[in-house]
Amino acid sequence: MKKLTKRNENYSKWYNEIILRANIAEKSDVRGCMIIKPYGFSIWEKIKSILDNILKYTGHENVYFPLLIPKSYFSKEYNHIKGFAKECAIISHYRLKNYKNKNIIVDKSSKLEDELIVRPTSETIIWNSYKRWINSYRDLPILFNQWANIIRWERRTRFFLRTSEFLWQEGHTAHSTKKEAINQAKKILNIYTNVLENFIAIPVIQGIKTYSEKFAGAEKTYCIESIMQDGKSLQIATSHFLGQNFSKAFDVRYSTEKGNKEYVWATSWGISTRLIGAIIMTHSDDNGLILPPKIAPIQIVIIPVYKTQEQLNLIEKLVFPLKKFLEKRGINIKYDKRIYYTPGWKFNEYEIKGIPLRITIGKKDIDRGTVEVVRRDTLEKKYISINKLKFLIPKILSQIQDNIFKVALKRKNNFLIEVDSYEEFIEKIKKNSGFLFAHWDGSSETEKKIKVETNATIRCIPINLKKNIGKCIFSKNLSKQRVLFAKSY
Amino acid sequence: MKKLTKRNENYSKWYNEIILRANIAEKSDVRGCMIIKPYGFSIWEKIKSILDNILKYTGHENVYFPLLIPKSYFSKEYNHIKGFAKECAIISHYRLKNYKNKNIIVDKSSKLEDELIVRPTSETIIWNSYKRWINSYRDLPILFNQWANIIRWERRTRFFLRTSEFLWQEGHTAHSTKKEAINQAKKILNIYTNVLENFIAIPVIQGIKTYSEKFAGAEKTYCIESIMQDGKSLQIATSHFLGQNFSKAFDVRYSTEKGNKEYVWATSWGISTRLIGAIIMTHSDDNGLILPPKIAPIQIVIIPVYKTQEQLNLIEKLVFPLKKFLEKRGINIKYDKRIYYTPGWKFNEYEIKGIPLRITIGKKDIDRGTVEVVRRDTLEKKYISINKLKFLIPKILSQIQDNIFKVALKRKNNFLIEVDSYEEFIEKIKKNSGFLFAHWDGSSETEKKIKVETNATIRCIPINLKKNIGKCIFSKNLSKQRVLFAKSY
Repeated sequence: MKKLTKRNENYSKWYNEIILRANIAEKSDVRGCMIIKPYGFSIWEKIKSILDNILKYTGHENVYFPLLIPKSYFSKEYNHIKGFAKECAIISHYRLKNYKNKNIIVDKSSKLEDELIVRPTSETIIWNSYKRWINSYRDLPILFNQWANIIRWERRTRFFLRTSEFLWQEGHTAHSTKKEAINQAKKILNIYTNVLENFIAIPVIQGIKTYSEKFAGAEKTYCIESIMQDGKSLQIATSHFLGQNFSKAFDVRYSTEKGNKEYVWATSWGISTRLIGAIIMTHSDDNGLILPPKIAPIQIVIIPVYKTQEQLNLIEKLVFPLKKFLEKRGINIKYDKRIYYTPGWKFNEYEIKGIPLRITIGKKDIDRGTVEVVRRDTLEKKYISINKLKFLIPKILSQIQDNIFKVALKRKNNFLIEVDSYEEFIEKIKKNSGFLFAHWDGSSETEKKIKVETNATIRCIPINLKKNIGKCIFSKNLSKQRVLFAKSY
Repeated sequence: MKKLTKRNENYSKWYNEIILRANIAEKSDVRGCMIIKPYGFSIWEKIKSILDNILKYTGHENVYFPLLIPKSYFSKEYNHIKGFAKECAIISHYRLKNYKNKNIIVDKSSKLEDELIVRPTSETIIWNSYKRWINSYRDLPILFNQWANIIRWERRTRFFLRTSEFLWQEGHTAHSTKKEAINQAKKILNIYTNVLENFIAIPVIQGIKTYSEKFAGAEKTYCIESIMQDGKSLQIATSHFLGQNFSKAFDVRYSTEKGNKEYVWATSWGISTRLIGAIIMTHSDDNGLILPPKIAPIQIVIIPVYKTQEQLNLIEKLVFPLKKFLEKRGINIKYDKRIYYTPGWKFNEYEIKGIPLRITIGKKDIDRGTVEVVRRDTLEKKYISINKLKFLIPKILSQIQDNIFKVALKRKNNFLIEVDSYEEFIEKIKKNSGFLFAHWDGSSETEKKIKVETNATIRCIPINLKKNIGKCIFSKNLSKQRVLFAKSY
């Protein structure tokens, strides 16, 4: 079987090959839209279920708003429409004709009076409803979330990282005070961080976007960023404090306890199928995908090595009770006894798919009383006594989870560098050496110039970094704290 | 609080009022598109989770295909495009302009070369991919399913029953033999029937659609139909045997074990948010919604009646352990101690929302050692000893589930009538007296004439009905078996 392209040969080719070879996704004929195949989709389902449970536990409720949004809604918040105008898919007709001769054309007589936009995000249609639902302080807070598909007509697309259609959750909350809304935006950032670090094993940096990088319509955009193996930064999720921008645009006011009318405060926040790209780019190696056990749809694969039905019977006498025992403890196991494929072919297949643990059992193993266990993260091979197997496996899975995070954390820390001169900055950026902490004067002008000259952008102003005053690497003007520069996806 | 309109006064007004008052859904400004509110959406999530588990358990895998489908795909299967051409939302542009002056217009220069259709169903885009994925008999069967949103530009829309956008699952399978595909279509029909009868408590009739009522592109459409309280029939779900129509249209062939090339056999099947409409129309009464416990997002509401904090403390000393005990057994409980609202207001609220069981606890109850328990289905009030409560509640919930089904089954059976003359047929149909079993000569011509004259259609040719020969009520020609006529939604 053909080997994958190596990361240091061609990182983006490697990335695409993993996606195709591990059966995660495939391109479709529709520009920038991909097909998410069962294996890829089951990873998304795992992540979705983890986050959905946490959101529900913290009081959020799921809703569903229409896919199609009247064009006029977008005009109401200027920065919002400005940000999305160039990537809106627009529906103008609702009927086809001439289908008899296979040369289908749009029936012009079916033109919609009011053209509709396929949602690129749902703030406008949701705030148009909040106007009806919010009257009094008793109606607040509203903590709604929806899992939905989104269309943004992107110029350059890339599997998961940037696609014309993607899946995400978008939360939209309404609050009576500014403080409560800001706390909500931060709380969500912490929920995302928890999911990323403790389940998906991706260490992140929490920060705030600069004025020019913030969401169209937000007052403040909180974000989590992570560094990929090639030293580029990937924005993983954002949580926006929207101030009163949308409540003013849609005239959503509430009566306070004292009877005054006040505009409502808002947040919105989202995380998308881009996460799957982040998982591949963070954890995988030259042999294929590596999945942290907590999000792996299949955590263990068991492969019997046999030549006769008799041997298979012997093996299965061992495998079936083990499988049952572990499944009762919530471990997902695939037992692959297919005869079309050789064990070697299967080893390769599950290595590319990133299954955390592989157990091989043959007649000889049974005679010896041990089985071969291979960890995907370290590729380490061990022979484990059959008696100990069922108690050791949960421990090994937990070790794999920890180790995958540790490796990613170490890499992240190695990529974090403080730079104090623009020369050093340029040199490092050229080599994609990761996250550069550098002083910046706070102006959009400097930010833009650095971007033009180096292709690096300010990924965020880190939240948890000790503030210290210095001089901007570019303008030499006063800087209040270091910010995080990197090239990004 | 204002009473609901009664069913016998205005059935469709009653239906709409329940949806609004129970906070299930709301209209949006987009023609025919509704907003599914948290309570309504949580019912959908319950159903989705039940069906998804069964589908996975029976070997189906979830995928996600693009929302947008190239127009040209539709031309490939003539009957398919013929069926959907009039209700396709078409995307023609991807950019807006003039957003500064709030008079947004579509940027004509951003016209798409290939216009795209928002999926009304996904056979075409999926079979276009199956062509790449299927080569050999080893690649079969493919058992894929997706949960997705769908757009069909319907003329007349109605909450849940017919909306321009709806949510559904659509299964698309590929098989090596005709027999296997037909069995798959039937198997799915049985899965739907199981979910409907054993979880949602809606008794159904399994049947086959006539030629003129079958799915655009199918060889045979299996369906389940159910009768609503007003005597009209509602198509709940369909499962199509597609023959080789799509494999021929998209040239999908596989090599058999002997090395021949054969066209693949197909099925598709779906169930949608229409189900929520069916639940309301089947189970509810003049006081509001009635939800079967197995799909109720909240199964029990506990309402404390108190005047002082001291009383509340006493009540909670009883409520909290009970709640914990039942929650551990998978029962969803809402404890509502809000002070803004009176107990009476709450009783009414949860009655409209159809919560299966209501428990009220006041100081007096504690003194007496009993609490008041009210079943939503029968409105029966009982005083149950506090000691017995935790063991009795699961039993009562199960009795409610059974009773809701029994009531619906009895109604269904009452609505089933055999008619042997066209005069009787007309008379019954005028009164909306339900499902009429009548002989039919098998011709589309007769079917059409009856429809024009009476508004009744053949809902299905029942599968499990004993066949007996007779004379068509309309043409007096030979009839092979009785079929099911009704007015429908």
